Amino acid sequence: MTESVLASWREGPVKQAIVDFVALATTPGPGFVAVADRIATFDNDGTLWVEQPLPPQFDFVFRRWAQEIKQDPSLAEQQPYKAIIARDPAFFAGVATQDPEVVGALLAAFARTWKGTTPEEFDAQVREWLQTVKQPKLGVPYIELVYKPMLELLDLLRAHEFRVFVCSGGGRDFMRVFAEETWGIFKENVIGTAAEYRYADGRIVRAEHALGSLNVGPGKPEHIFAQTGRLPALAGGNADVDIEMLEAARFSVLVSHDDEEREFAYTSGGEASLARAKELGWTVVSMKDDWITVF
Amino acid sequence: MTESVLASWREGPVKQAIVDFVALATTPGPGFVAVADRIATFDNDGTLWVEQPLPPQFDFVFRRWAQEIKQDPSLAEQQPYKAIIARDPAFFAGVATQDPEVVGALLAAFARTWKGTTPEEFDAQVREWLQTVKQPKLGVPYIELVYKPMLELLDLLRAHEFRVFVCSGGGRDFMRVFAEETWGIFKENVIGTAAEYRYADGRIVRAEHALGSLNVGPGKPEHIFAQTGRLPALAGGNADVDIEMLEAARFSVLVSHDDEEREFAYTSGGEASLARAKELGWTVVSMKDDWITVF
Repeated sequence: MTESVLASWREGPVKQAIVDFVALATTPGPGFVAVADRIATFDNDGTLWVEQPLPPQFDFVFRRWAQEIKQDPSLAEQQPYKAIIARDPAFFAGVATQDPEVVGALLAAFARTWKGTTPEEFDAQVREWLQTVKQPKLGVPYIELVYKPMLELLDLLRAHEFRVFVCSGGGRDFMRVFAEETWGIFKENVIGTAAEYRYADGRIVRAEHALGSLNVGPGKPEHIFAQTGRLPALAGGNADVDIEMLEAARFSVLVSHDDEEREFAYTSGGEASLARAKELGWTVVSMKDDWITVF
Repeated sequence: MTESVLASWREGPVKQAIVDFVALATTPGPGFVAVADRIATFDNDGTLWVEQPLPPQFDFVFRRWAQEIKQDPSLAEQQPYKAIIARDPAFFAGVATQDPEVVGALLAAFARTWKGTTPEEFDAQVREWLQTVKQPKLGVPYIELVYKPMLELLDLLRAHEFRVFVCSGGGRDFMRVFAEETWGIFKENVIGTAAEYRYADGRIVRAEHALGSLNVGPGKPEHIFAQTGRLPALAGGNADVDIEMLEAARFSVLVSHDDEEREFAYTSGGEASLARAKELGWTVVSMKDDWITVF
């Protein structure tokens, strides 16, 4: 390994564990991973970029819904619009636990906004948001808040013939807009919660229903298997909704948000994953201690 | 282009059209296709290998169902088992047209046989079939009946930075068993009709329901978009269920089965696609005239 490997990672047991895994996986002997099996999967929100105060896609979605409420104030009486206006934490907790009522209200609102949208139209909406909206604490667009050390990890894996996938609870098509320029991976390597699309009259347009389960919890290994035919050799996550994906991998990296100065310090939504990391010996990354540079 | 390009293809307008498209797509100027957009998709049955007397996967499935009927003769009174025993063409025509009763009976039978199966178990079943069963007319295992000229086309495309996907009405997981050794593409580049899988207790097991639509007709571009975020730059097919995929591509190749001596001569199930090819100027491959070698 040259010195430039994982240059933004501080020398120490975490960096060493990652470098050792890659060396072991790519050297014939015990721990070797055949090239075909070299699938690496990473959560996005909180693992590859900032997820505070809300996962960035929520900002994108809520801005559109706020416009819709302006045009049709009666929406403010219904869910999920009501919860968004009130910033009702109980409602949003229902997303992580997949409360059927919460999920149903959200899916209906998604359909109301995007049913019939073409990929080109959706792409333009996301690009406009990416270019105009800034993260409130850090003052720059979310796309500039991708973690440099994680991009280096993606590079290291690719250099060793791993195929890198992003696997997020967020929208597959939302992430695909910026995947290629941001992560250097093709759209087909992005796995996420997804709408169904219909093909008619020579065009793809968005239909009403979500395809399969939400891509959180057990949905992550399910979607990874559906997309790739395998479970991951390496997985990276940061939250309780990543536990199953991290359990399914041979080597697991958990990002811990403990850097209030450069990013955020919080454990909310990640308590169970931190406990599971201790139990199973996952590699826990301290943003504060293990990263020389964050962005 | 060196002489070894498409070596099993006879010189002529069909080979030339393919070589010209690849040259145009990879040379800056009109017709250039950006690397990210270089998605090529191929049907499997009848496009990459023999599909007579039945698509090979049917042979695999029907043998298992015949065993089940032996163990439980009452199944012979129900669909789809009854239609299989009677070789009822009306029932099987219902697969292509997606008759809900036919599709429902088939899905129920698939679930009966494979619900709860792990990928490893299914893999072993398919491998055993691949090694033991021979195509009745040609007398060799189906896996030896892959068209050599098409493998050369896949190679040509890959050499020009196309990502090659197989997109078949057949089972995704069935094809994934032999995709890597046969086509030289990773499992994640195989798109097909698919079961849902559940992840529980650290294992992936097959669930009851099919995921999304059958991968035929409009389902093909829908699945291609879902898997890759794009529609294909080049597509290859041979049947009416491929029409929408071929229409969605910039350059389309239709394989015509007109070689009774070396393979089969039939137009059944491909009449509409041949008509559409004339109308839209697709490149129609005569197996008899355009291929020096078939297998």
